[in-house]
Amino acid sequence: MTNPYFTPMPLGLFDACRAISAGTITAQAYLQECAARADSLDPALHAFVTRLPTAELLAAPCTGPWAGIPVAVKDLIDTAQCVTTYGSPIYAAHRPAQDATIVATLRQQGAVVCGKTVTTEFAWRKNGPTVNPFHAEHTPGGSSSGSAAAVATGMVPLALGTQTYGSVIRPAAYCGVVGFKASFGAVPRQGAFPVSGALDHVGFLARCVNDVALAFNVLRNQNTDEPESIVVPAVPMDSQTGLQTRSAPRLAWLQTPFDDRVSAEQNQAMQHAVDRLRASGAVVQTITLPQAYWDALQAMDCLVQCEGGHVHQQHVAQHADLCSVHIHEMVTQGGARSAFEYISARALQQQLRADASAQLQGFDAVLTVPATGEAPHGLGFTGDPLFCALWSFLGLPAITLPMSRSQKGLPLGLQLVAPYRQDGELLRTARWVEHTLAAHKDSVT
Amino acid sequence: MTNPYFTPMPLGLFDACRAISAGTITAQAYLQECAARADSLDPALHAFVTRLPTAELLAAPCTGPWAGIPVAVKDLIDTAQCVTTYGSPIYAAHRPAQDATIVATLRQQGAVVCGKTVTTEFAWRKNGPTVNPFHAEHTPGGSSSGSAAAVATGMVPLALGTQTYGSVIRPAAYCGVVGFKASFGAVPRQGAFPVSGALDHVGFLARCVNDVALAFNVLRNQNTDEPESIVVPAVPMDSQTGLQTRSAPRLAWLQTPFDDRVSAEQNQAMQHAVDRLRASGAVVQTITLPQAYWDALQAMDCLVQCEGGHVHQQHVAQHADLCSVHIHEMVTQGGARSAFEYISARALQQQLRADASAQLQGFDAVLTVPATGEAPHGLGFTGDPLFCALWSFLGLPAITLPMSRSQKGLPLGLQLVAPYRQDGELLRTARWVEHTLAAHKDSVT
Repeated sequence: MTNPYFTPMPLGLFDACRAISAGTITAQAYLQECAARADSLDPALHAFVTRLPTAELLAAPCTGPWAGIPVAVKDLIDTAQCVTTYGSPIYAAHRPAQDATIVATLRQQGAVVCGKTVTTEFAWRKNGPTVNPFHAEHTPGGSSSGSAAAVATGMVPLALGTQTYGSVIRPAAYCGVVGFKASFGAVPRQGAFPVSGALDHVGFLARCVNDVALAFNVLRNQNTDEPESIVVPAVPMDSQTGLQTRSAPRLAWLQTPFDDRVSAEQNQAMQHAVDRLRASGAVVQTITLPQAYWDALQAMDCLVQCEGGHVHQQHVAQHADLCSVHIHEMVTQGGARSAFEYISARALQQQLRADASAQLQGFDAVLTVPATGEAPHGLGFTGDPLFCALWSFLGLPAITLPMSRSQKGLPLGLQLVAPYRQDGELLRTARWVEHTLAAHKDSVT
Repeated sequence: MTNPYFTPMPLGLFDACRAISAGTITAQAYLQECAARADSLDPALHAFVTRLPTAELLAAPCTGPWAGIPVAVKDLIDTAQCVTTYGSPIYAAHRPAQDATIVATLRQQGAVVCGKTVTTEFAWRKNGPTVNPFHAEHTPGGSSSGSAAAVATGMVPLALGTQTYGSVIRPAAYCGVVGFKASFGAVPRQGAFPVSGALDHVGFLARCVNDVALAFNVLRNQNTDEPESIVVPAVPMDSQTGLQTRSAPRLAWLQTPFDDRVSAEQNQAMQHAVDRLRASGAVVQTITLPQAYWDALQAMDCLVQCEGGHVHQQHVAQHADLCSVHIHEMVTQGGARSAFEYISARALQQQLRADASAQLQGFDAVLTVPATGEAPHGLGFTGDPLFCALWSFLGLPAITLPMSRSQKGLPLGLQLVAPYRQDGELLRTARWVEHTLAAHKDSVT
């Protein structure tokens, strides 16, 4: 492949931590390798809004379990060290007083926040300049556009994203990386600019399941200090081999009322993946969900209009010309909603979150597409979050894995979803699926 | 005293558990003593809506750390064993399928749910038949009316109540018992009929601080399975002596814009108590809070109208004639609220909850009245929750202790409040205050 983005990459997160700890590579050398790659690739990719100069990164003290690990942080998340724009010209010069909780944890681990990645405006619709590394005329997806592109091209082994509908899973799928959003409340959100408090998740983008599992273990909530936070146990990992192996899982292959929107090649790729998983012993059964689940997507829109609109009232009032039409629309729609509509939507969310565990009884995970197909052509539309939205509404842990490529060479992903709080089980299932698909790929090539 | 309600009482919760465990009294004998007292007193007091026959109570198996302990449960909280009316004729024959989480925990401990206590209609305004044991023409307070009266008269050593504005603290103060509501989310609420999800707390009524501390330790949330729940650590207690002693506390004596509503004798009693606490070494400094805190009481009304109104829409739609005017009003008011108003109120609540910790820096607790004075005359009005409401809005732990009596012989209480999650510290401070006031009382008599 002549695409410069995919020349041999620095080690991924888990392997880099292991190599640095074993002394195979120094923290400084690893950091420098990643930074050099970003220096070379980002000018055409536009994954970063702000990137700290390599000299500055290397000058910082380098201690802790993640010493030398550069992490890219979506520019929706506060960093005291860098301007944080939230993707809006209103905040073009905004320097937060404090790091977000999760950024502070990164620093405590010794990681280096090497820069801020492009987000759509306030993590909503208006796109930024990032291109898809597989094809510059295609969107990288959004809203965590830069995080997905930065990880896909090996400029960082880990990036933070956020997801309200599908803003981690979709760009990860479009850029051919692993995206993981944990159960609602399991990862600290303090300092991430809100879209909708009832729906917002902070998530992880990296190159393999071990990498996002490690990020989850280190960065998840360890207490309930934050409103609506929960504590989900760490998933057991061996320091040399990563996630423990598990037996072939039972997967619920979800049929939805929107399956006609999925591209033929995405469908075909899913069918091939299912064949391979079955060949390795997985039980894959098709399931459907009651119509109430799909109707709930309207409740989700209501939550975003109300909570997002409430947050953006001040922006529209004070900086009308600096807000996109999408933000104006959100405020107008939210302003027309009644308290009862909002409360009904929240109540439905709680009810279905609990009910989903019953629906998925007997399965290790749901299997579904992460998106309708390859990343759409053009940068103006970051793609349809339809196949991610329900899991965000329900707050269930979800992960996307790269599965194959479209004819145009763009990545196609496969999404797995588990019941609420079953984050560790999901990660272990995902590791099994990743391993199984890779083994088949090797045997075919 | 000739009042039959105050003849020598069975042991309180902590002492009874200790005595039963030591074999000084049998679980059966203790249970029988309490049940006999209820047989004799409740016909005139009307604390209970439903009471299980003594024979049935005694026939049940009696094992576990709380074996033989009868607990009264506010009839707002689901019990599978008894009809649960929520204080409404709509539910006159309602038998829940499951125990509330906290009731299930009580049973696991071996406690005996001996009956359901009178609540106002849906824990809102319309009073029930319970009278104040100190004066039958006065209200016991509400909405946990029966729980306060049952504990005050020694029919049970512990009762469960709920508080949205002041429904644990106020009746406890009016009936001369200890009432404790922990930090918002620290005690399971599943199965308690909601007034307002953002404000509802389950609380404990008992005869001394050790008793509510023991209840808190045993019945608090031990995980975050429930939405909006938090885990607050148990407060250390010695099995023989109860709460550990502490040094004289620093107390913030709160001045409010509503202090002119407090009766002269309640004010005088507070001043005497402060003198005694100071004489024993406590630092008592007057403080005020920013006006935003008092303005927040309107946000609180908004939350109740929206959340309560949303819940009661169905009752008004299907059983209009069985709903009081207060319930109709709540639905009408809530229906007129916008989503933005509701979300603003929730946001203010989160903001002030965090700010309150800063306001109270350097103090162990706030000292304030639990009510404007003695229980009002008549049963129709259960009293003004004004001096409890703010702590419910903020979700701070609050406790009321009996302090003295009015000229008419009705109890006057003293309330202590601590920052969010400082439940253990509050209980230890309350124990010091209880001990200090009791010592002074002894030395004066």
